Amino acid sequence: MRFSLLSVLLLFFAGPVSAQSKLNYVNPLIGTSKMGHTFPGATVPFGSVQLSPDTDTLSYAVDGKYNPDVYKYCAGYQYEDPTIVGFSHTHFSGTGHSDLGDILIMPTSGKLQLNPGIASNPKSGFRSAYSHDSEKASPNYYAVMLDDHKIKAELTTTTRVGIHRYTFDRKDSAHIILDLVSGIYNYNGKNVNTYVRVVDAHHIIGFRQTSGWARNRTVYFAIAFSQPIKSYGYDDLQSKKVYQGFWRKFNLKDNFPEMSAAQLRAFFDFDLESSKELILKVALSPVSMEGAVENMNRETPDWDFDRHRKNGEDLWEQELNKFDVQMLNEEDLTNFYTAVYHTCLGPTVYQDYDGQYRGLDFANWFNKDKNDVNYTTFSLWDTYRALHPLFNLVQRKRNADMVNSMIAHQKQSAEKMLPVWSHYANENWCMIGYHSVSVISDAYNKGLEGIDYNQALDACVQTARTRYFEGIGSYMDLGYVAEDKSGSSVSKTLEYAYDDWCIARLALGLKRMDIYEEFSKRSESYKQVFDPSSGFMRAKMSSGKFIEKFDALETHQAGYIEGNAWNYSLYVPHQVDSMIELMGGKKRFALHLDSLFTMQLADKYFEHTEDITREGIMGSYVHGNEPSHHVIYLFDWVGRPDLTQKYMRQVLRTKYLAKIDGLSGNDDCGQMSAWYIFSSLGFYPVCPGSDDYILGSPLVKSAKINLENGAVIEITARNQSEQNKYVKAVYLNGVKMKDFRLNYQNLKNGGKLVFEMTNKPSKTF
Amino acid sequence: MRFSLLSVLLLFFAGPVSAQSKLNYVNPLIGTSKMGHTFPGATVPFGSVQLSPDTDTLSYAVDGKYNPDVYKYCAGYQYEDPTIVGFSHTHFSGTGHSDLGDILIMPTSGKLQLNPGIASNPKSGFRSAYSHDSEKASPNYYAVMLDDHKIKAELTTTTRVGIHRYTFDRKDSAHIILDLVSGIYNYNGKNVNTYVRVVDAHHIIGFRQTSGWARNRTVYFAIAFSQPIKSYGYDDLQSKKVYQGFWRKFNLKDNFPEMSAAQLRAFFDFDLESSKELILKVALSPVSMEGAVENMNRETPDWDFDRHRKNGEDLWEQELNKFDVQMLNEEDLTNFYTAVYHTCLGPTVYQDYDGQYRGLDFANWFNKDKNDVNYTTFSLWDTYRALHPLFNLVQRKRNADMVNSMIAHQKQSAEKMLPVWSHYANENWCMIGYHSVSVISDAYNKGLEGIDYNQALDACVQTARTRYFEGIGSYMDLGYVAEDKSGSSVSKTLEYAYDDWCIARLALGLKRMDIYEEFSKRSESYKQVFDPSSGFMRAKMSSGKFIEKFDALETHQAGYIEGNAWNYSLYVPHQVDSMIELMGGKKRFALHLDSLFTMQLADKYFEHTEDITREGIMGSYVHGNEPSHHVIYLFDWVGRPDLTQKYMRQVLRTKYLAKIDGLSGNDDCGQMSAWYIFSSLGFYPVCPGSDDYILGSPLVKSAKINLENGAVIEITARNQSEQNKYVKAVYLNGVKMKDFRLNYQNLKNGGKLVFEMTNKPSKTF
Repeated sequence: MRFSLLSVLLLFFAGPVSAQSKLNYVNPLIGTSKMGHTFPGATVPFGSVQLSPDTDTLSYAVDGKYNPDVYKYCAGYQYEDPTIVGFSHTHFSGTGHSDLGDILIMPTSGKLQLNPGIASNPKSGFRSAYSHDSEKASPNYYAVMLDDHKIKAELTTTTRVGIHRYTFDRKDSAHIILDLVSGIYNYNGKNVNTYVRVVDAHHIIGFRQTSGWARNRTVYFAIAFSQPIKSYGYDDLQSKKVYQGFWRKFNLKDNFPEMSAAQLRAFFDFDLESSKELILKVALSPVSMEGAVENMNRETPDWDFDRHRKNGEDLWEQELNKFDVQMLNEEDLTNFYTAVYHTCLGPTVYQDYDGQYRGLDFANWFNKDKNDVNYTTFSLWDTYRALHPLFNLVQRKRNADMVNSMIAHQKQSAEKMLPVWSHYANENWCMIGYHSVSVISDAYNKGLEGIDYNQALDACVQTARTRYFEGIGSYMDLGYVAEDKSGSSVSKTLEYAYDDWCIARLALGLKRMDIYEEFSKRSESYKQVFDPSSGFMRAKMSSGKFIEKFDALETHQAGYIEGNAWNYSLYVPHQVDSMIELMGGKKRFALHLDSLFTMQLADKYFEHTEDITREGIMGSYVHGNEPSHHVIYLFDWVGRPDLTQKYMRQVLRTKYLAKIDGLSGNDDCGQMSAWYIFSSLGFYPVCPGSDDYILGSPLVKSAKINLENGAVIEITARNQSEQNKYVKAVYLNGVKMKDFRLNYQNLKNGGKLVFEMTNKPSKTF
Repeated sequence: MRFSLLSVLLLFFAGPVSAQSKLNYVNPLIGTSKMGHTFPGATVPFGSVQLSPDTDTLSYAVDGKYNPDVYKYCAGYQYEDPTIVGFSHTHFSGTGHSDLGDILIMPTSGKLQLNPGIASNPKSGFRSAYSHDSEKASPNYYAVMLDDHKIKAELTTTTRVGIHRYTFDRKDSAHIILDLVSGIYNYNGKNVNTYVRVVDAHHIIGFRQTSGWARNRTVYFAIAFSQPIKSYGYDDLQSKKVYQGFWRKFNLKDNFPEMSAAQLRAFFDFDLESSKELILKVALSPVSMEGAVENMNRETPDWDFDRHRKNGEDLWEQELNKFDVQMLNEEDLTNFYTAVYHTCLGPTVYQDYDGQYRGLDFANWFNKDKNDVNYTTFSLWDTYRALHPLFNLVQRKRNADMVNSMIAHQKQSAEKMLPVWSHYANENWCMIGYHSVSVISDAYNKGLEGIDYNQALDACVQTARTRYFEGIGSYMDLGYVAEDKSGSSVSKTLEYAYDDWCIARLALGLKRMDIYEEFSKRSESYKQVFDPSSGFMRAKMSSGKFIEKFDALETHQAGYIEGNAWNYSLYVPHQVDSMIELMGGKKRFALHLDSLFTMQLADKYFEHTEDITREGIMGSYVHGNEPSHHVIYLFDWVGRPDLTQKYMRQVLRTKYLAKIDGLSGNDDCGQMSAWYIFSSLGFYPVCPGSDDYILGSPLVKSAKINLENGAVIEITARNQSEQNKYVKAVYLNGVKMKDFRLNYQNLKNGGKLVFEMTNKPSKTF
């Protein structure tokens, strides 16, 4: 979560959006420098296509060896890079691990080059130097001048189609490179197979099959060119290594209509007769090439780039208009609406226009009702915390579809488990826990319709009883995950306990009492790993003994993942009071918690640690690591809301900046942004699955949340200012609140929430 | 076409077939030694599954290097081999190139071994020694004792399911090896991806994706075990080379329900509680794993091995009963019915039970009418000659389906060409010509119903105008394939000319006169490559000059493929009279042709030649090479039917022996067998697409061909004997024939054909 001295101004306005539009407050470039891992390219809300420039993807790490720089390129683009390799169609937003970058297109002119070349010498290949001066990024629009080729590139999208408009400086020797080798976190052997078929002078179809983070993934595509292909061919980087058979009888590389290899770069040459403008439509499908063709026919039957750009902008306006906020300054507005933008970049639609999609069982599934949409990219260890709870306010239909997508995943998977971290009909098993159950339980609790909750509960129970998964066997037998059975055992025990509480709560609602009892008992497992002698949650062995070596501040220590004992010990969101009791009671806990933010961390804790730098942390609080996301709100429980308010404002002011490098850590598929949205509105879902939001300190001056049912939640922060970060009193529908818990039932049909702001800290509401 | 001194007796009778049954005359072991390339295992007529032992497949040739021994293993089994590696489910019959050998199953007992070991030391791996004494092979049944494991293995099939019955000597430590590495003509990199999912204790599903002779092929499977799996795991030969990601958190090799890797061998352990018998059902699908499951549920809902064996035997009886023949001895009956058997091993059904199949466009197609069946494995350069013409007599519905499968292929293919040599939704481009057009034209001419012939003609024309295919551009521009534009130019020109005649004839029938004229003209292209100075067809350059270096007997010479100038120059089946005229008239041609059989070939022509040995040829006539298949019949045209009769009997008596090594060359997907059937019945389709069969000399004493329309063609060879190989007169329905041409129209509704045999050669009928 470093943030640097780089301070590029970001309030430029791209293209023909009106000055009043909230689109102007979205800057897709925020987070594209350093660790935000966002992408600057074009997409529509929750769109299947994320059409974005790749500045380098380090595709060329050889022999499967880990390339330490690969982490930078999770979204394919780093703002500091001097060259663009091309524009690919799939990108995660804000992840800490990577895949995708499929179907890279690069327009070039002059001599044909089929090698991307190197950044330090862009003329060595088809890549191009570019300048940020020519670069424009706004919702559903990206433009840049490719200086080496003198081509203006413009990108826009529909849900399933990427549309490229390239304006060439000259009419002859125009090339389109279709690079199926390129991809994000590529390595030798990631490409399993690729295929390209030239259908006619205007159309090609194909697929790219990879085995990377997603072990068995295929992306099908169809491409239409606005002008006829003059000639085409390809280079196959591995042709000498594989059996060629009787295909050798053809000159495969010269206008032969079928190409197939693991490592394939194709080119298409054009004489731009009618104009210097060449438009490409690139449709994707999870199902088949014909599915991609049909997606293109339905979504982009014409060549009207500007119309599709406008349609996408309208979709973005709809999403942004769910929030009408007044803030202290323009930068805050940019932060807020860019955060809203970032929360609409995933999970993404994973379904053809006709309702078909590929399941984890490699079969084609079909949502007969086109209103039912299958989604993919579930970064659940992150997003169960605030993103899905936010969806329960403003994306209720989509969140119901996402829950149903999770249930379908469970049915289709070999392990019969709900998704842990899944993308593109694959489970990638990243991070820990089974937090789908939190999303499901929260959906039930917030009354989402269109979900078979009994089936969902069965899926939760089946998942939570998968003994071979990450120490669950030990957890079920011993009441905790034993460190000698499964690493990161403390983190797992704590998260399982919370997840089990979610299951119990769902079971209670459905009156399935045997399940309720089983999982209520499991939900108290956190007590098993609390070590009274140290006052922290501590890894325990099968023998029942805590591990000997222990340093509460050491991140690289047995028992934890993405956090140290200090931070992780605070993770009992479902039974905070009980946790506080364990840790010595309210008074002691308040001091303990405050020291987290004030301590002076020794140098040794910064060594060998990727995500933690001295600039990036507050005491020992690391905002970029999700296990801390609820921590500031815990002061509420011990009568110190003033500290919640104080640290809240500090985080909102320092960890989210309206700058290219303004994100303090990976946006994590919108979780960091969802945290910002909730927290700047003044409350946060510390325990998804419960009814309660916990009050903090708003950053907005006022806000309207326009719910899908037509109701409006109005938030007013009276006397809001930089100094007045403390809350004197809170009024819900005119009644002064006596508790720090804000009940969802009081918001779901709208309501007025008024915060009286002050510069004086107070321990009471 | 060597045949050796090996003379294993083959008239043993396997299992419970009745002594009267024609099944007793089929010996699947014929051709399994040397170059027959047949497989001995179980299958039903035209079945998708060919479940057969693999004695070695040389899977382990490394680095893609050609292994010279690989040719032996086109069908996976060589009779001389001392060990069996396992039983795989897909095998070509009689091909000269290879693929398949999918989903190899090996039962073992005792210590688990996951490596196949080597033939010289079978105990080094899971393979087993076996003895031919314990081996039984009959239609739809194969049995053998696996000596090293003391397991009796029995195999039978339905169309889409292989059924294994293994009887173990002991109840404990029983293993089933599922080897997805093994395959025929394997090499490093052929396996693209494999997948196994354990559904429950009795069921697994998966797929094997390869890139070999078929460049993009996937075989899906489902396996059911009659007894519960106790435990399972796998070995992944390449696991260290590929990205493993977060899957490392599991112990994947120990009862984890999902396996995926390029090179995978799985094992399944059993305690055989209820009995020592373990039955496996292995269903295949070209479409999906669920398709395989459904195929199993529909075809083999039970575990009754014997019932399925009997059902398949009944299907075989139906096929064999299409011919009721009396012959001179038992060996001839074995030859005849084994030949009938071999003609029913391909093309094979390539469609799920529900009508779905995978097309060359990777899309799933659907034959809504379950009576319509998609077929695969079209070795057309071979089979257009006699196999498909035979089908027009006795497999009319199937042949119509095959034609429709070819038309579907054309629609689905990138090149928009009819199949050349296709298998498993792939074109493999083996050999030359576009002989689908012959099959289509012959089907039209023989009145096959259920084919859209106008659409078929369009497909033919589109195919024949594909300029980039094998010199067609040069052929269209110059009237012949120029050797400097495309090799084997003489062979191509001659075969294109014949194919074009087929197209013209179809066009004439459909009254599409522009096409008729275009292709009639093209059909005379053979004249362009006739060299009057040498008297042979000879390769010509673009310049119009014949190539200088020329030796009519040299096989390895520019211009020809699988044949020399001597043999290939006789290939103008559609205009034999014109060819004879070109070559100097009837008298000269008769002498010329006779010299083919009587010449003494110099030693140098045997060097470096795989298919030709001194023992295997008659003069310079090579029966194992298809371009000669019509040659003996040419004597009829020049008033020397006696020579046709003489050489015919010689070939029937020496090139087909009722012995393990009795086939003189690759059976070529039934073409060699179809030649035998026609020729032993006394006539042959020298020019498919025409109405005419050409008379030879029957080997049968009498025969009934039971047509599908209920009519019967009765053939009688009066005074048939070893000596009486000459034909004195032929009577059709009692009327003495005056021509050597027998018109199909006179046979299609049955008829009586009587040959008067004699020991005296005669130049007239």
